[in-house]
Amino acid sequence: MASPFPHYISEKSGLENSIMVSSSSVSPPLPSAILTQDELKKIAAYKAVEFVESGMVLGLGTGSTAKFAVDRIGELLRQGKLKNIVGIPTSKKTQNQAISLGIPLSDLDSHPVLDLAIDGADEVDPYLNLVKGRGGSLLREKMVEGACRKFVVIVDETKLVKHLGGSGLAMPVEIIPFCWKFTANRLQRLFEDSGCVAKLRTCFENGDPILTDNSNYVVDLYFKKDIGDLKAASDAILRLAGVVEHGMFIDMATTVIVAGEMGITVKNK
Amino acid sequence: MASPFPHYISEKSGLENSIMVSSSSVSPPLPSAILTQDELKKIAAYKAVEFVESGMVLGLGTGSTAKFAVDRIGELLRQGKLKNIVGIPTSKKTQNQAISLGIPLSDLDSHPVLDLAIDGADEVDPYLNLVKGRGGSLLREKMVEGACRKFVVIVDETKLVKHLGGSGLAMPVEIIPFCWKFTANRLQRLFEDSGCVAKLRTCFENGDPILTDNSNYVVDLYFKKDIGDLKAASDAILRLAGVVEHGMFIDMATTVIVAGEMGITVKNK
Repeated sequence: MASPFPHYISEKSGLENSIMVSSSSVSPPLPSAILTQDELKKIAAYKAVEFVESGMVLGLGTGSTAKFAVDRIGELLRQGKLKNIVGIPTSKKTQNQAISLGIPLSDLDSHPVLDLAIDGADEVDPYLNLVKGRGGSLLREKMVEGACRKFVVIVDETKLVKHLGGSGLAMPVEIIPFCWKFTANRLQRLFEDSGCVAKLRTCFENGDPILTDNSNYVVDLYFKKDIGDLKAASDAILRLAGVVEHGMFIDMATTVIVAGEMGITVKNK
Repeated sequence: MASPFPHYISEKSGLENSIMVSSSSVSPPLPSAILTQDELKKIAAYKAVEFVESGMVLGLGTGSTAKFAVDRIGELLRQGKLKNIVGIPTSKKTQNQAISLGIPLSDLDSHPVLDLAIDGADEVDPYLNLVKGRGGSLLREKMVEGACRKFVVIVDETKLVKHLGGSGLAMPVEIIPFCWKFTANRLQRLFEDSGCVAKLRTCFENGDPILTDNSNYVVDLYFKKDIGDLKAASDAILRLAGVVEHGMFIDMATTVIVAGEMGITVKNK
């Protein structure tokens, strides 16, 4: 499938391998002034869709970057360049988008193993661990993307961090609405050594709690320092009764495609 | 507070200590023909309420045994023998019961630390680990009872097992309704070495899934063999995206009161 964008592509095989391998699809980067963040997202999304083959069961991500990938899959289906795709949406929003594009849909109950998922991320660390869920769909995304043989993550370069939480932006946790303050306080205390602040995610207009697709609340955790061992942090969060799921996706991404002003970098695990 | 039931009380201090210590309140057991399971539950419940003191913040359990304890607390409040009690109910059902009895109520958001909780259990192992939630309130029970200084469990002797799951009855897991079959299958596979069978809990009348107080589903796990390390099993269950909470209460009970035909046994951790 020809790439619709002229760009540099470099590949990193293995996390510790810093050798940059130019792919066959190389052209000079466009002048940075022309590339908006949205264009970078689109470049990464289109590159990810090159992994899609006819007949695949596909996890369809949620968020501004994934939206470009879903649009592209719909376009290739319409053009007949892809056939027999089954999409598993990770949110009601993506489900509606896919229906409007005519992408055939199913669910995890019918397709418990997926070939490939494509989704964005809010943060990517050097080990390809992710923070996801600022868009509010972390639970369904984790269910779908945990069931995939390959999970391709697409981001612009602003999402790269040295450690998860390092952007200073939210690490979301989906919680049961029952006594949410109690749960939020316990989450904050869990990471008090990292200067954690826990905030309920609310609607900008009226201050009401924002509901997930599962009718739960989201507490956003903000860290001042590195939280250390991610697997230990994950278990500690999940052990709190009242927590449904958190937005750290540890050891899940198999490929991360990063679009930057200098071109595209493909990192493989 | 005088016990309303004549009974033997034996105390075990420490789990490995098999010395039975008779308390001051001893009388011959009633003939077994007279003691129904409900009467045994009531005896255990009334004994547990002897731990309650005026001014306490109390976790109020859910289920047929806990109901007797809540009734008794209401009775003692009416009689003026207890004062200034604040109850934290573990279910909507218990909340309604407590309101009807005039027990003042609050919640975990206002009272994040409780003095004492009293609740029943479906299974109790020799280390005072529990299975709870056959009544469907496991999440709220775990939130409330995890926030207590003391957690007194009241059971009749039929609930004692050698290992959790050993009764052959359900170990419940609260899950998100989204793609519940997928989650149920993953739970079953997690314990396939223990001959696990996972079943969605449904309404006897119409076959619809039963909803928890948090509008989630319950999958009941049935084991043919011991599942082994409970903490490892707990973490493995909680790591499954789609799982909200499970019914194993590990290292939570501080006292278990067992009512049997031979009298009452109090086991302390």
